[in-house]
Amino acid sequence: MSATPPESPSTARRIALPSPFRLTMGGDLVGAEVAVETYGTLNPARDNAILVFTGLSASAHAASHPLDPSPGWWDAMIGPGRAFDTDRHYVVVVNSLGSCFGSTGPASVNPLTGQVYGGDFPEMRVEDIARASQAAVDALGIDTLLAAVGCSLGGMTVLAHAALFPGRARGLVSISGAMAANAAAIATRSLQREMVGTLLKAGADRSLVEQAMRWARKIGVLSYVGTDLLEQRFGRDQTEPYAGRGSGTDFEVESWLEHLAKKFVRQFDPWSYWTISRAMDLFDFGAFGVAAGTDGLRHRGATDTAAAARTLQIERALVIGVREDLLFPVDQQREMGQVLGEAGVDCEYVELCSPYGHDAFLTESALFTPVLTEFLSGLSAPATHRSVTTHTRQLDA
Amino acid sequence: MSATPPESPSTARRIALPSPFRLTMGGDLVGAEVAVETYGTLNPARDNAILVFTGLSASAHAASHPLDPSPGWWDAMIGPGRAFDTDRHYVVVVNSLGSCFGSTGPASVNPLTGQVYGGDFPEMRVEDIARASQAAVDALGIDTLLAAVGCSLGGMTVLAHAALFPGRARGLVSISGAMAANAAAIATRSLQREMVGTLLKAGADRSLVEQAMRWARKIGVLSYVGTDLLEQRFGRDQTEPYAGRGSGTDFEVESWLEHLAKKFVRQFDPWSYWTISRAMDLFDFGAFGVAAGTDGLRHRGATDTAAAARTLQIERALVIGVREDLLFPVDQQREMGQVLGEAGVDCEYVELCSPYGHDAFLTESALFTPVLTEFLSGLSAPATHRSVTTHTRQLDA
Repeated sequence: MSATPPESPSTARRIALPSPFRLTMGGDLVGAEVAVETYGTLNPARDNAILVFTGLSASAHAASHPLDPSPGWWDAMIGPGRAFDTDRHYVVVVNSLGSCFGSTGPASVNPLTGQVYGGDFPEMRVEDIARASQAAVDALGIDTLLAAVGCSLGGMTVLAHAALFPGRARGLVSISGAMAANAAAIATRSLQREMVGTLLKAGADRSLVEQAMRWARKIGVLSYVGTDLLEQRFGRDQTEPYAGRGSGTDFEVESWLEHLAKKFVRQFDPWSYWTISRAMDLFDFGAFGVAAGTDGLRHRGATDTAAAARTLQIERALVIGVREDLLFPVDQQREMGQVLGEAGVDCEYVELCSPYGHDAFLTESALFTPVLTEFLSGLSAPATHRSVTTHTRQLDA
Repeated sequence: MSATPPESPSTARRIALPSPFRLTMGGDLVGAEVAVETYGTLNPARDNAILVFTGLSASAHAASHPLDPSPGWWDAMIGPGRAFDTDRHYVVVVNSLGSCFGSTGPASVNPLTGQVYGGDFPEMRVEDIARASQAAVDALGIDTLLAAVGCSLGGMTVLAHAALFPGRARGLVSISGAMAANAAAIATRSLQREMVGTLLKAGADRSLVEQAMRWARKIGVLSYVGTDLLEQRFGRDQTEPYAGRGSGTDFEVESWLEHLAKKFVRQFDPWSYWTISRAMDLFDFGAFGVAAGTDGLRHRGATDTAAAARTLQIERALVIGVREDLLFPVDQQREMGQVLGEAGVDCEYVELCSPYGHDAFLTESALFTPVLTEFLSGLSAPATHRSVTTHTRQLDA
């Protein structure tokens, strides 16, 4: 992946949220802010902005630039001539509220107490991530987004954004997202939270909490990448000749997981992880389809995704799923495409094949770029009458 | 699942192993024994015995009987008229060496020190489980088994048994087994061991070790059952009306996992878990295909499953895989069937569909019974010339 800084201007800033910023479940954040990076130039008509919602653990630093030349997590996708073409588009990436890369979250100091929030950070929903990001868009003077785009958690957030702010984005792109987590994803994330939360709540020393974060990350990685990728890359390869009962890390795949886990522990705050992970499980797009005033948490069948989709005011939608995705199975993403299409949104569903599974959007730029480029070109073109269609394309890696 | 005790005689006993019992990696066990249960009657010709190798955490109590009327883990499969028909067969189930249900393992007292082995239990291989079980078969006066049968880990053990004791079993049945774990299975078990082992080695108090065992069990369960089963059974159902940030167990799937995990922690010894789990990862049937004196641990491509299969002296083999199995993917089991067939074993490969995934053999007796009954009938019939064939059947639940 190239890390060449895009030539277009970029900015990195923090944007203050209205204070207090009231969360969906009732908590208030005083003096909260979100970290925002932008790439490209907002045109005079202010109609070329694309808002990007990230996955659970990503920062706003999606692309490298002169102000921060360190690699961005989506360098291959953002820049001149890339899928998010900074010669044409003004790309806005917001670090999720509740995260720990400049936005207010559990690792921040609560100005009312002078203490780090930690476990006292108020319960947050995916809807709050969408609302905080929209507040940043407002602050940037953007009335209507060309498109809102989200990957993984971001694929949930982009739905929340569309439901909460009808008409504020012309296009919607969900990559490896879902209208709601399935039981296996809930179970997996619940276990990760249990590990981290148990030790955090017990006031365990930092090394134990870090161990829990390492384990949670390993579970995460095993749910992101496809089984076949692990087999192709590592198989039963061993790191060194076997010398009796070892440290437990003599298979290559174990060392690789350990490397990823150590890196994550250094970067991510445990309570941020807990808070955002929990928000993902609680998200249910169908809750936008039931009477106002409910909390969106009810037994199956009581939420209504079709009704929720009918409230959206989107010109076009693009839903991309990856067949090897274990965490957000492609069936869920196909269903999202169908629900949007049946609600009258001009929606394309594209199904990709990649051994990278849920993480494919981070690495398979060659697969994603043409699909995104075509979608964004269609949105940039002068408006014409468009028939409502849902069609599916399948691309093999 | 019916728990009616079979009417045929059953026994539960401990059988002493030759002492010292030298393990594959060089360790010695003094005064070791294995727990054995038998169902049915050994016939005068002593040719109707079936040896069952279990999964990681199962005991020898596969079926309930008057001496121990508590439910057995394979009650639906063992008894008069069942797949393992105790009116015809003499079924021998051995608690794996290294386990904690009566067989010598890490929870046993080392007679040389008077102390519980714990982490000092010598490194054990799947081969040692096979050898200890064969020692029990010898003690029961059985020269040739009608068949050796194994599920999960047992599907590895049955291959080790066939390679170590050529001609001692006429038939081989592997259910949801593998010739070697794949990278994803290694990674999953490695993480489980890391959790349990880290806290055990740190001398953490019992409650922390139990927590690690609970987490390891939850990871295990999520790797055993199919994603679709969780979705069908639990979806996003919640246990109670949501009342703010809760205990983290407000989804039904979370409560179910917690129940299973608590039960497991009460039953299984942590060091037994660690030891047998590690043995599973290290097992490589292909190591029987390379020069003697090596330890079977080498880089990929250096072991030879085809050569290993050619050393077997089995009349017939039955390999059963389940398509929804995440831990022992069905591709691995199909490969096992092919390798055995190509080595000249009369081998049938049967692929089943069940939402229970890896655990299907515990619950889907209606699917497994006709397949096993047919196979065992073929073995019981007078010997005739049999052509070597590998054929595949697919059965949908």
